[in-house]
Amino acid sequence: MEELSQVKDQIKEFVEDINDPKSLELLDLLATGKMLRSKLILKIAGISQQSIELCAVVEMIHAASLLHDDVIDEAYTRRGKPSINALFDNKTSIMFGDILYSKAFTQLTFMDKEIAYTISNAVTLLSVGEMLDVDLTKDFNISYDKYLDMIYKKTASLIEASAASAAILANKDKDAFALYGKNLGLAFQMIDDILDITQDSSTLGKPALLDFVEGKVTIPYLFLYQRVENKEYLKSLYKKELSAKEATWLKEQFKSTNSLEDSIKLAQDLGNIAIKSIVNYNNQDLVYIMESMINREF
Amino acid sequence: MEELSQVKDQIKEFVEDINDPKSLELLDLLATGKMLRSKLILKIAGISQQSIELCAVVEMIHAASLLHDDVIDEAYTRRGKPSINALFDNKTSIMFGDILYSKAFTQLTFMDKEIAYTISNAVTLLSVGEMLDVDLTKDFNISYDKYLDMIYKKTASLIEASAASAAILANKDKDAFALYGKNLGLAFQMIDDILDITQDSSTLGKPALLDFVEGKVTIPYLFLYQRVENKEYLKSLYKKELSAKEATWLKEQFKSTNSLEDSIKLAQDLGNIAIKSIVNYNNQDLVYIMESMINREF
Repeated sequence: MEELSQVKDQIKEFVEDINDPKSLELLDLLATGKMLRSKLILKIAGISQQSIELCAVVEMIHAASLLHDDVIDEAYTRRGKPSINALFDNKTSIMFGDILYSKAFTQLTFMDKEIAYTISNAVTLLSVGEMLDVDLTKDFNISYDKYLDMIYKKTASLIEASAASAAILANKDKDAFALYGKNLGLAFQMIDDILDITQDSSTLGKPALLDFVEGKVTIPYLFLYQRVENKEYLKSLYKKELSAKEATWLKEQFKSTNSLEDSIKLAQDLGNIAIKSIVNYNNQDLVYIMESMINREF
Repeated sequence: MEELSQVKDQIKEFVEDINDPKSLELLDLLATGKMLRSKLILKIAGISQQSIELCAVVEMIHAASLLHDDVIDEAYTRRGKPSINALFDNKTSIMFGDILYSKAFTQLTFMDKEIAYTISNAVTLLSVGEMLDVDLTKDFNISYDKYLDMIYKKTASLIEASAASAAILANKDKDAFALYGKNLGLAFQMIDDILDITQDSSTLGKPALLDFVEGKVTIPYLFLYQRVENKEYLKSLYKKELSAKEATWLKEQFKSTNSLEDSIKLAQDLGNIAIKSIVNYNNQDLVYIMESMINREF
């Protein structure tokens, strides 16, 4: 997508505005992701100066949240490249995150008030979600509602706000696209949680089954806990470096209880809700974004 | 000031909006400062729902910057109370800072666009200033321009933006009040830098002469470096725990070269520029805020 390089140029222009050489240097070192949020915005609102600027703002916010995330998770790689906290230190990651956040908010003040509200409110949700995520790793969480609330805030809220803001820009039905974005975001996070179990470490770029070791009871584990006979044994593996035997037991139980299969089904159901909510708009690109996410090899 | 408790109530209301119990718990643990920025805003714009909300937004931004500052400086006390990173951990400090920042930006979207721009732009400057501050501690900085640029961004920019925003709210001369706030902020930081040298550790609540140990070449040291005969000896004390003899040598040199005296004079000059810039408004309270800051025992 040629447009995505326009978004990158816009981000660079915004950072150049700040007139701080170090910030430009750090921007160059950030690994670029798939730019899912920009793709969504452009598929909903089309390509214009306004939509490119909205994409740049959302990508800067997303990058800022990852910079802080990497400090919080003590992660030293991001998308296969060393993270800023690995290349420099935690301080630089925190400060550059603050610079990107505040520059994005500054640019929002030139946009439609409803868009500015929608995006900045999502950043509050995202930050609360980050805190909930950390707090949920303290004990073995068995509440689906808590998990859903956390992934909504941490992952889905900014995707929801991106889709809603693009709809506002394009004079389309804000609520319908918000619903699409929200369910896309929830499905996206669930699939990420599933891949942590089904993929091997070389594909993931991090150890497999890492979530559970780090205290994260994700959707497949929630199902498994409800269904497995030996709940105490499952709990005994929580936050532990797993032996090969323990990892094999886990994978067998995921299969025999259908916990993994039902997690995939749940993500697919959310994907279908997303698609239905915008069915009137007959937007094949958005259907494709969702389908390519949920119909894959696990 | 009764009005300051209205500001505190407003902050609490904003945080209650977020609907996250942990955030409210953390808010209660934050040490309250002198609320200089709120005092300024209320003295310029008077007391109204709008001005109280502006104060709350600015105080939340200031608190967020301190939360991140304490992580960056590895500071475990703040205003004589344990900091959030001491009570909890760095993660909590980063995340709660992000929550306060983003909630403040969200509230700005309901305010005048020029105010929203002025405040959020100041947060970018402030974040860049924080990064410059850290970078300037890497080597012995002898540039006054770099020092001034850094303290403008780190300390003066949000005070400048507070005064300018209050003027916008009250239909007063924005530029005049911005100039007042900027020079108040610069003087404020210089005086803070001077107190690090002149006050004893029990009054400061931290070791005296700490700035130099931490690599900060503040205004008295900049003057001293220009004037002292034995520059190499001065440089040899940089970033070092000082012996009693070394500390005494420093204090004697500050005196004999008039470096301390001239730093105080410079801060007072900036204070007088601030007062002159709003002379037409005959606002005795603002004159008093400045004078009580610069005419004191050092």
